[in-house]
Amino acid sequence: MTSRSLILPLLAFGLAASALRAEEGMWTFDNLPTKAIQAKYGWAPDQAWLDHVRLSSLRFPGASGSFVSKDGLVLTNHHVGRNWVQRLSSKDNDLLKNGFSATTREQELKVPGLELVTLVAMEDITARVAKAVKADASEKEALKARETEIEKIKKEMQEKSGLTCEHVTLYQGGEHWIYSYRKHTDVRLVFAPELQVALYGGDFDNFTYPRHSLDITFFRVYENGKPFQPKDFLKWTETGVKAGDLTFVTGHPGRTNRQDTFAQMTYSRDFAIPSRLKGLERRKAALLEYGKTSTEAARQVSSQIFGIENSMKAVTGYWSGLKDKEAMARIKADEKAFRAKVAKDPKLEASAGLSWSKIEGATKAAQKLAKDAQNVGTANSTLLGYALSLVRIANEEALPSEQRLPEYSDANLKNAKTRLGVPGPFYKEQETFLFTKGLEEAARELGPQHRFVKAMLGGKSAAEVAKAAVAGSKLQDPEVRKILLAGGKKAIADSQDPMILLARKLDPISRDLRKKQEEQVTSVITEHGTRIAKARFAVFGKNTYPDATFTMRLSYGAVAAYPANGTLIQPFTTFGGLFDRYDGWGGNEARAHEGAWILPQRWLDQRSALNPAMPFNFVHKVDTVGGNSGSPVVDKKGELVGILFDGNIDGLPGNYFYDEKVNRSVSVDARGIVHALDKVYGATGLVAELTVK
Amino acid sequence: MTSRSLILPLLAFGLAASALRAEEGMWTFDNLPTKAIQAKYGWAPDQAWLDHVRLSSLRFPGASGSFVSKDGLVLTNHHVGRNWVQRLSSKDNDLLKNGFSATTREQELKVPGLELVTLVAMEDITARVAKAVKADASEKEALKARETEIEKIKKEMQEKSGLTCEHVTLYQGGEHWIYSYRKHTDVRLVFAPELQVALYGGDFDNFTYPRHSLDITFFRVYENGKPFQPKDFLKWTETGVKAGDLTFVTGHPGRTNRQDTFAQMTYSRDFAIPSRLKGLERRKAALLEYGKTSTEAARQVSSQIFGIENSMKAVTGYWSGLKDKEAMARIKADEKAFRAKVAKDPKLEASAGLSWSKIEGATKAAQKLAKDAQNVGTANSTLLGYALSLVRIANEEALPSEQRLPEYSDANLKNAKTRLGVPGPFYKEQETFLFTKGLEEAARELGPQHRFVKAMLGGKSAAEVAKAAVAGSKLQDPEVRKILLAGGKKAIADSQDPMILLARKLDPISRDLRKKQEEQVTSVITEHGTRIAKARFAVFGKNTYPDATFTMRLSYGAVAAYPANGTLIQPFTTFGGLFDRYDGWGGNEARAHEGAWILPQRWLDQRSALNPAMPFNFVHKVDTVGGNSGSPVVDKKGELVGILFDGNIDGLPGNYFYDEKVNRSVSVDARGIVHALDKVYGATGLVAELTVK
Repeated sequence: MTSRSLILPLLAFGLAASALRAEEGMWTFDNLPTKAIQAKYGWAPDQAWLDHVRLSSLRFPGASGSFVSKDGLVLTNHHVGRNWVQRLSSKDNDLLKNGFSATTREQELKVPGLELVTLVAMEDITARVAKAVKADASEKEALKARETEIEKIKKEMQEKSGLTCEHVTLYQGGEHWIYSYRKHTDVRLVFAPELQVALYGGDFDNFTYPRHSLDITFFRVYENGKPFQPKDFLKWTETGVKAGDLTFVTGHPGRTNRQDTFAQMTYSRDFAIPSRLKGLERRKAALLEYGKTSTEAARQVSSQIFGIENSMKAVTGYWSGLKDKEAMARIKADEKAFRAKVAKDPKLEASAGLSWSKIEGATKAAQKLAKDAQNVGTANSTLLGYALSLVRIANEEALPSEQRLPEYSDANLKNAKTRLGVPGPFYKEQETFLFTKGLEEAARELGPQHRFVKAMLGGKSAAEVAKAAVAGSKLQDPEVRKILLAGGKKAIADSQDPMILLARKLDPISRDLRKKQEEQVTSVITEHGTRIAKARFAVFGKNTYPDATFTMRLSYGAVAAYPANGTLIQPFTTFGGLFDRYDGWGGNEARAHEGAWILPQRWLDQRSALNPAMPFNFVHKVDTVGGNSGSPVVDKKGELVGILFDGNIDGLPGNYFYDEKVNRSVSVDARGIVHALDKVYGATGLVAELTVK
Repeated sequence: MTSRSLILPLLAFGLAASALRAEEGMWTFDNLPTKAIQAKYGWAPDQAWLDHVRLSSLRFPGASGSFVSKDGLVLTNHHVGRNWVQRLSSKDNDLLKNGFSATTREQELKVPGLELVTLVAMEDITARVAKAVKADASEKEALKARETEIEKIKKEMQEKSGLTCEHVTLYQGGEHWIYSYRKHTDVRLVFAPELQVALYGGDFDNFTYPRHSLDITFFRVYENGKPFQPKDFLKWTETGVKAGDLTFVTGHPGRTNRQDTFAQMTYSRDFAIPSRLKGLERRKAALLEYGKTSTEAARQVSSQIFGIENSMKAVTGYWSGLKDKEAMARIKADEKAFRAKVAKDPKLEASAGLSWSKIEGATKAAQKLAKDAQNVGTANSTLLGYALSLVRIANEEALPSEQRLPEYSDANLKNAKTRLGVPGPFYKEQETFLFTKGLEEAARELGPQHRFVKAMLGGKSAAEVAKAAVAGSKLQDPEVRKILLAGGKKAIADSQDPMILLARKLDPISRDLRKKQEEQVTSVITEHGTRIAKARFAVFGKNTYPDATFTMRLSYGAVAAYPANGTLIQPFTTFGGLFDRYDGWGGNEARAHEGAWILPQRWLDQRSALNPAMPFNFVHKVDTVGGNSGSPVVDKKGELVGILFDGNIDGLPGNYFYDEKVNRSVSVDARGIVHALDKVYGATGLVAELTVK
């Protein structure tokens, strides 16, 4: 969950409209602000440049990457490749800890399951979709007609091109597109540094800058057993960038909430985010309390606490955006002006005039349901989580895909089943402690007469229930879970595992709550969010960019310092800065803060071979969010000058709005990558491949 | 006004009481919290240690320093020595720019006027002073009796010891002491680095951390033409400190407002500080506006704008303390508890029971007078400032010292006269522009019928008045000012210089305002602040430290990281970090932000000779404020491990309260000093003298 892979925001609906600020925007390739770029930087990309950069870019699951050699070498972030690298690890060779470097093609490790795609075509099907809807169709008929038409077009195109075609909704329904992807399924690991230097400073330095992380991994795409030769790949820079230089970033920003209504933002600010922070605080307090019970307990909880603190850091960052009075006043004024325009157009008014108040109503309903939503669930219990999945899969599997809960649809069922078979960390005392806390909290918040509380406790104390259920359950064993999974509905019905028994009681209560949320909140927000979006599109046209949708976008902006920590933060960090941060904590011996800033031995051994002045990371004004992780950073020549891996903490309000003064993306400098490969890793083959003329 | 020499706070009165937080306190040497130190660190200083460290410490004008060799070598900050170094510079050799390093004793440069003192004795005279006041004395009689007795004791002691004796009031009148100092008047400059590395990062990095400044200057004390041999001096560390190590700081914290009443703090928070910030904003806006008129104008104003921004940074920092809801709630609760205790003691209640509301009344009076206070004055005009001084000196000189305005008392008159003779920067167009702005603003704020506005403008426009006065005045010439000064009352009365004419009108108006302020604000706050302080002393005794008074104090605390900028800031910076900051801006060629981070050529030439891992600056928990600049940092052995030069921005609320979590002092590491002297400056003699065994 580190850095800029998909960090999903908190509430996912709605809309507003404003004059764009410089460098703002995650633009689709069909609608780039070339005039603005030209005006500000005296240069703008042409079609050939854009095609080349787009075709060199790749989508990773939840993130981004790019081709960087004629032999199909692929660059992404270490934190994007992390799970795949972990899967290739063995007990004897922990590739996360030790890193990996193939010196021959034969040593490159095939990564089962990893698929990468290149966006090769985009077709606007908005008009065709609109035509499929009869003038006198009801809302429901229209929806159905649109869906049918989209599926039909997709199938047609897929058959015609042999590509992977995906439907893309932009501007909350204002536009429909088919994006066609070329898929690569033979992907092999070429190089990964040690986690310790890829995630230097750990959760502490995450979302921050100055930063010193070699957050990179190289893969290679193969076809028919041979390195794939992409027509387009990004040439490695010889010159690098300097302060003020224009950079571009291509990639897949996951989700932004910049089109939320003011009521939604207010709800997030005043209720949803504070509730979430309170929940995180509580979880942290419970872990801290448990950590005090023994040295082993303290060890167990420390990384979980880090994770929670990191979430709190991110959420607090989003929140600070919503608490920015100036920005919120602007958003409010923009919405007011937009509503006035809608009110003047009878057709728009009829469609969307009431939508803002409907959405506001939905946020109120959400608030009423919030206490249940926060407490009806698995109450911190990992085992009850397994049990609920098993119970639900058994029930859902029998249904047609579209009638199931979305997490068990055909698309997701396989993953859900796989997850149940993966061994996970399990600490019995901790489980009992946290489950007790969770049940106690639910009882306190919901009251003893609440259906959930009665079902879970059955008149006993939380401690009794938790102790007995954890002691009696066998679900910590992945083999036990697999057997239950294979046994289907009958096995679940026959099981006397206490967690399964609890999950059978929990399931209907939880389903009822979800149904209420769906009816009173989600469906209202979806419907009226779309109506507002369509009105917005009608009023403002296409002079802006759509909210992020984890589809291909381009952002631009200069390498630039920004004000923070009472001073100005310099645009570049260096290898010397990495060692300053290392030495400043007292080096590896000190193991300050669980060793967040220790360096792999290889780096210490090669220290004197490194050029301290070599750029390592840098900040630039490009507008990005989670999902942009691994995005290539290119210069005007279309050459790769860096790879994006994070944003600064001051940029977290970017979820809601972009602030040119302080919003910065953080990237690894291309020159620094080659320098490390060369001097620290002796990866001469890789260096030669990257820097070939 | 960089860093930690005397930065005077905004309002200077009053009181509150609370449990001390760890590491809090600027302690007097007679009342150290040795038990608390022992309990926390397993070690506490004994009397011999304390005497040695105190006698090794020095007071500089407005700052601190220490003896560091048997031959009278003295260490302080570069920014403490800066004005003295500047006075030793010539047109041909700018010692600020180029630095200075004497390689022989003969090359050491005598610094005219610089006097240093060592605190050799402290005597508590509280009881004797109390005895001098008759039981039935009126307030006024009591005051007079006290003053007379103090003068008498001081004289006695001075005659007996031959030392320089100063009266010190602690705990706002709760204690009276005579501190006796040994004075050193032959002080010579031995070494100063280039300003560019002493103030690395300029006003941007001031008050911040991580930091990389060699903020040091060495002087040597001579007696009878030979190096003075102090009995006590601080031995230079061989080991240095590491994270967690206990450090002590001796020095002269200038002023804190921790004993202000809650009403005073509220007044500062809600009125005084916002007004001051508004004033700074306006001045900045005026300079920016003027700067747009030409390239030369832009050049003139840039350093003035930096200075203003730096003041804004400091004031905003103080303000953030007052806006800390938790801290303010604690202060409020402490005051409430204290008042309840006072109310229970009839004697205290009679003396101080009404004092809180009296002081609150005074803040209201101050608020009423604020518009006049902000606008009745020299309206941004440097020339009118000179003129007003000349007019006032002519008037005041005739009066006995105690009847004069305090800035022209016997103690200050000489300085005031000297200042008039010093050439200063003068830009005619800027002067006209800013004076016009100042007069316009006064007219807008006070209205056209205000006595000051009528007197200044006399029916003309601000622009006309300013233009004519600046064009007609000769006061920019220090020789003209000297002649007027020498001519006394008559010369002023005869002068037709337009600025003198304006000053003659301004003088009585300004005096009337000052009288009102004195009667309604200052005297009330002084009187009732003292009453509260006495009550506080009676209730709580001496279990705490007094507010800072620019007298000798000791602070203690460990070397420690702190949270900022979204992460944890490491305790040490290194020479490698200095170059990281340098390279990160693009080096000297880039001259980013007017070259705030450029390095002297000598540093670039010697870069490869430097050990990048060598500690340069560090942060520790010692509780310090402005005036502590140049304070020695010593370890348990009493050896010098660093020299304090600043505090972090998070510590600025320290003016009002100490927060262990984030309040840090910033010091230069003793090891780094020797390393730079050795490798960059080749100052082998100095290194040998410091590190002699």
